[in-house]
Amino acid sequence: MHRLNTFISSELPAINSALKRETGTLHPLVRPVAEHILDAGGKRLRPVLMLLTARALGRTGQDLYPVACSLEFLHSATLLHDDILDRADLRRGRPAAHLDFGEHKTVLTGDALLALANDIVARTGDPDMTRCIAQAIIQTATGEILEIAAIRDTSLTSAGYLEIITGKTAYLIQAACELGARMAGADDEKITRAKGYGVNLGIAFQLVDDALDYSSSAGTSGKPRGGDLREGKFTLPLLLFLESLEPQERDELRAGLARETLTEAELHTITARIDAEGFAAATRVAAEEYLARARACLECFSASPEKALLEAVLEYVLIREK
Amino acid sequence: MHRLNTFISSELPAINSALKRETGTLHPLVRPVAEHILDAGGKRLRPVLMLLTARALGRTGQDLYPVACSLEFLHSATLLHDDILDRADLRRGRPAAHLDFGEHKTVLTGDALLALANDIVARTGDPDMTRCIAQAIIQTATGEILEIAAIRDTSLTSAGYLEIITGKTAYLIQAACELGARMAGADDEKITRAKGYGVNLGIAFQLVDDALDYSSSAGTSGKPRGGDLREGKFTLPLLLFLESLEPQERDELRAGLARETLTEAELHTITARIDAEGFAAATRVAAEEYLARARACLECFSASPEKALLEAVLEYVLIREK
Repeated sequence: MHRLNTFISSELPAINSALKRETGTLHPLVRPVAEHILDAGGKRLRPVLMLLTARALGRTGQDLYPVACSLEFLHSATLLHDDILDRADLRRGRPAAHLDFGEHKTVLTGDALLALANDIVARTGDPDMTRCIAQAIIQTATGEILEIAAIRDTSLTSAGYLEIITGKTAYLIQAACELGARMAGADDEKITRAKGYGVNLGIAFQLVDDALDYSSSAGTSGKPRGGDLREGKFTLPLLLFLESLEPQERDELRAGLARETLTEAELHTITARIDAEGFAAATRVAAEEYLARARACLECFSASPEKALLEAVLEYVLIREK
Repeated sequence: MHRLNTFISSELPAINSALKRETGTLHPLVRPVAEHILDAGGKRLRPVLMLLTARALGRTGQDLYPVACSLEFLHSATLLHDDILDRADLRRGRPAAHLDFGEHKTVLTGDALLALANDIVARTGDPDMTRCIAQAIIQTATGEILEIAAIRDTSLTSAGYLEIITGKTAYLIQAACELGARMAGADDEKITRAKGYGVNLGIAFQLVDDALDYSSSAGTSGKPRGGDLREGKFTLPLLLFLESLEPQERDELRAGLARETLTEAELHTITARIDAEGFAAATRVAAEEYLARARACLECFSASPEKALLEAVLEYVLIREK
């Protein structure tokens, strides 16, 4: 873990200056909105994964950084659009962009950042990479649409939930690893394994996120527990809890969630039960299965410091507390 | 003109079925939103220009249609986002998408359509074409941001106005012609001319639009006159009118526009004066200059029915009444 943090710290300056260089190509009226969301920080997880995959497969050189940035631009664009749609006030502890710049500039800057991501990748001259980033945008937007459509939908199954989190979270992480492998000129087998590592890591990442929503205290995650329950999102901890109930109790709870008729006290009790009865922990167990699949995908990679760091990322996902 | 209409009518079925094929690749939850905006009709001006340019430069074949569609997807995505930001109720006489599908699905479907445009072009395997469509998205979004920033900004100059309309309207039309030329395998000289035709046509198109806002009656354009004045948009007819006034009257009017203090009667009078004193007509004269430049760009194209149709488009821009 220590080595992963050291690696990230050593790479952040180069990632951030590449981000700065690319946003510098935007019009002076657009740039501040882009800088607002990028300067808010974040783990740069997607660029880091792209760099690690490329290097684990033998690619070195400075020209990795712009492509790594394309993933952060895509991620930032979705954050800009999400914050408007969710009427969010804060993003990473700062006022959300739309409160500072207005909805028009924020939506349109999101559009420009999606296009900038495509433009950067197009510069590599590899159409497979351009298709990869375009498909990542389509799948991420589709996953978010599925998630919204499933809110307060009591018929959502575990398979439906998995489709949502694969789209909204895992596909972009898969794309980060695919772009890294393609930048390294990897063969089809290695590209498939890199994608497999990414998608399984991404699913595990979101599963842990959804478990943390029931198990972490406001102190560590910065968010009150049970936010997903209040928003009517049927994530895995809730789905597992519902399965554990007697039919009558299950039907009553489902009806209350669908009709938004539960009191604050009831929501609080359910949140506490989901954690206490082990459904957040069971979600982490599910995440561990995906992490094991991700680890298996790395088997065909030769041993290298970067391969070890890709393995360290899998540990990090499980131990993070926010 | 008759021949242009005949051409468009003969091409629409193939364009529309290519659009249908591409939207068919979207998730069943996303597809209806895309179909809503696409089924609302429209002139398919951008696909038509792409097809005409490609054929005028010697390219034939069915594989032009998907790329032609990418331009319509890009255009449709901007309409979806604009209608939300403008809180528009209607689009082409039907309820705007966000009223039927909600803001979330509409913004995210816009994102997916931007990405679909990139994906389609990436399939050609030509990175220059991918960069062209990515840049078109960036420039269009930037133009719209400039336009919003300039609302009620009395310091806007004609040059600033031109920058806005080049971005928000002309760049995408330029991209349509550039993609056509690139699909035809044209040399750099021809590509430059095709782009020149497109950008000048696009500027003229928007100039005529802005003139029509002062000169057309609600009966033909479907919109009441003077909408831009009410919204605080300093388009060319208003800029020319302001220039014609004595300094004191000009300053008073500017202040009234900036502070939104003009009465309905005053707005009505100004709208009527701008038309009666010839500033809508003068804007059309400016449009004619850009159309002449567009026509000059076609000189290096060999004579062909498609070249004649590209010239007919220039006439159409000037005579259209809505």
